[in-house]
Amino acid sequence: MKGELLIVGTVAYDTIETPSGKREKVLGGSGLYASLSASFFSNSFLFSTVGYDFKDEDLDLISKKNINVNHIKKLKDEKTFYWEGSYLKDLNNAETKKTELNALLKFETSLPASLRKIPYLFLANIDPELQKNFLNQMENLAFVALDTMNYWIETKRDEIFSLFDKITFLFVNETELKLLSQENNLYSGALKLLNMGLKGLVVKRGEYGSVLFYNDRIAVCPAYPLDKVIDPTGAGDTFAGAFVGYLAKEGLFSFHEFKKALKWGTILSSFCVSDFSIDALMRLTFYDLAKRILEFEEILI
Amino acid sequence: MKGELLIVGTVAYDTIETPSGKREKVLGGSGLYASLSASFFSNSFLFSTVGYDFKDEDLDLISKKNINVNHIKKLKDEKTFYWEGSYLKDLNNAETKKTELNALLKFETSLPASLRKIPYLFLANIDPELQKNFLNQMENLAFVALDTMNYWIETKRDEIFSLFDKITFLFVNETELKLLSQENNLYSGALKLLNMGLKGLVVKRGEYGSVLFYNDRIAVCPAYPLDKVIDPTGAGDTFAGAFVGYLAKEGLFSFHEFKKALKWGTILSSFCVSDFSIDALMRLTFYDLAKRILEFEEILI
Repeated sequence: MKGELLIVGTVAYDTIETPSGKREKVLGGSGLYASLSASFFSNSFLFSTVGYDFKDEDLDLISKKNINVNHIKKLKDEKTFYWEGSYLKDLNNAETKKTELNALLKFETSLPASLRKIPYLFLANIDPELQKNFLNQMENLAFVALDTMNYWIETKRDEIFSLFDKITFLFVNETELKLLSQENNLYSGALKLLNMGLKGLVVKRGEYGSVLFYNDRIAVCPAYPLDKVIDPTGAGDTFAGAFVGYLAKEGLFSFHEFKKALKWGTILSSFCVSDFSIDALMRLTFYDLAKRILEFEEILI
Repeated sequence: MKGELLIVGTVAYDTIETPSGKREKVLGGSGLYASLSASFFSNSFLFSTVGYDFKDEDLDLISKKNINVNHIKKLKDEKTFYWEGSYLKDLNNAETKKTELNALLKFETSLPASLRKIPYLFLANIDPELQKNFLNQMENLAFVALDTMNYWIETKRDEIFSLFDKITFLFVNETELKLLSQENNLYSGALKLLNMGLKGLVVKRGEYGSVLFYNDRIAVCPAYPLDKVIDPTGAGDTFAGAFVGYLAKEGLFSFHEFKKALKWGTILSSFCVSDFSIDALMRLTFYDLAKRILEFEEILI
């Protein structure tokens, strides 16, 4: 149904340290950031698996947004995925201090029938084999976006390549693109992937914005100017969530709409990084969004 | 007179090594790159000083473009400024292998009366004290752009600050901005300089484009997508030359025109880096320019 979006990804507890401070065991995870962001546009169904320590009040918090949380499975014998990272050395790159996969090791692999018919799918960063498993269960796909990360590129490169002909857009950051394409230049790297059968590609460049490729067309989008970044965690997932959420809402599928989706991704992620964890996204209003998109339009060339 | 632009800067012989090859003693210098770029828009008067080894055929080459070379002084007892740099380690940052100041040590300091009346001035990267000397000789200034570099920021910071209230735009790259402002964020750094009395600022970010500040307004401009950079030498000077050259040609002075000037800077520098030395700029036609600006418009968001 138009306006419905399935997001498969992690829900986590993060401990984050940045030059602005430290937060312990706060809400995080690729699926959660993407869903919150998408929820400004679409009805997001978040499919994930958490542990017995996942707090009911946290689930309540999420469910107050435009997110269906009925398919977040709670395991009795595992804790929730836990990640500890520091941005003290480099605000653009997290240094991982600790990763406890916990519930991710027993991630639920079977989609209920009701979710299989949703036409818009965002596969946030999880094991590419799991991503393929979910892709294969979908029955009515119009659009698939897929995110990944260095770890999977290094260990399951071919698995990622094998998904290329099944997805509409791949989301990677610039480092991941160079690693995946084994090219040192963004554009030559992107062209290499497109020549391998990838249809669409969005390269996230943090404070430098993003570049979108679709067939033989390109769009470049600058970042929203920020004079302070508090916590970059989840910015990429937030970007992708807004991008897919907007397209799912509109049910439109054209280069012109992709450009608008890029703008929404830019704006949502600019809010995401302005506070720790999901705090800024939780506070965000449509008025804030409308105000910033207007400011963004003014600074565009 | 409208359409006239004075450029003060260096003319040099460079030896350049990049992943694409090596060129020995080829034409270079901040003043030369800026003049060539500006010459597509304005009548540029290039004020510079070279040595006895500067070849007549090189002067002929330059003079065939829309550049007045009558004020390039040739010294009898010095050689031309010589710079040797390598981009083998990092295509974005030159490693200086050798610098022989030569003629720069005896740079002519007095402007002839005819040049003092030109309303548009670009002070390419030279000693800030020399830049001030030239500024003080001008009689009819409408617009001044000024470029500088790390070396001057480290050794003559206050001298640069003292020029802030005399110039329309400062051109720096991102590293220079952070060094000059002592801020780690582009936007907080820019705001700090603007609060010190600087009116306009253009921050060049290489492959990430540029950001313009003028009073309380901002414009962000992506770079033109290139899948290969041959030689980045002179890209910043080429950018500034086109920016100032366009404004001098139009004689217009508005934020809207500044945005267009940014685009021209972007396009001209994208050609500059596509070959060694000034080779691409020498070959460049108006048709090439028009074609690329149209392609650029299409990829903008």
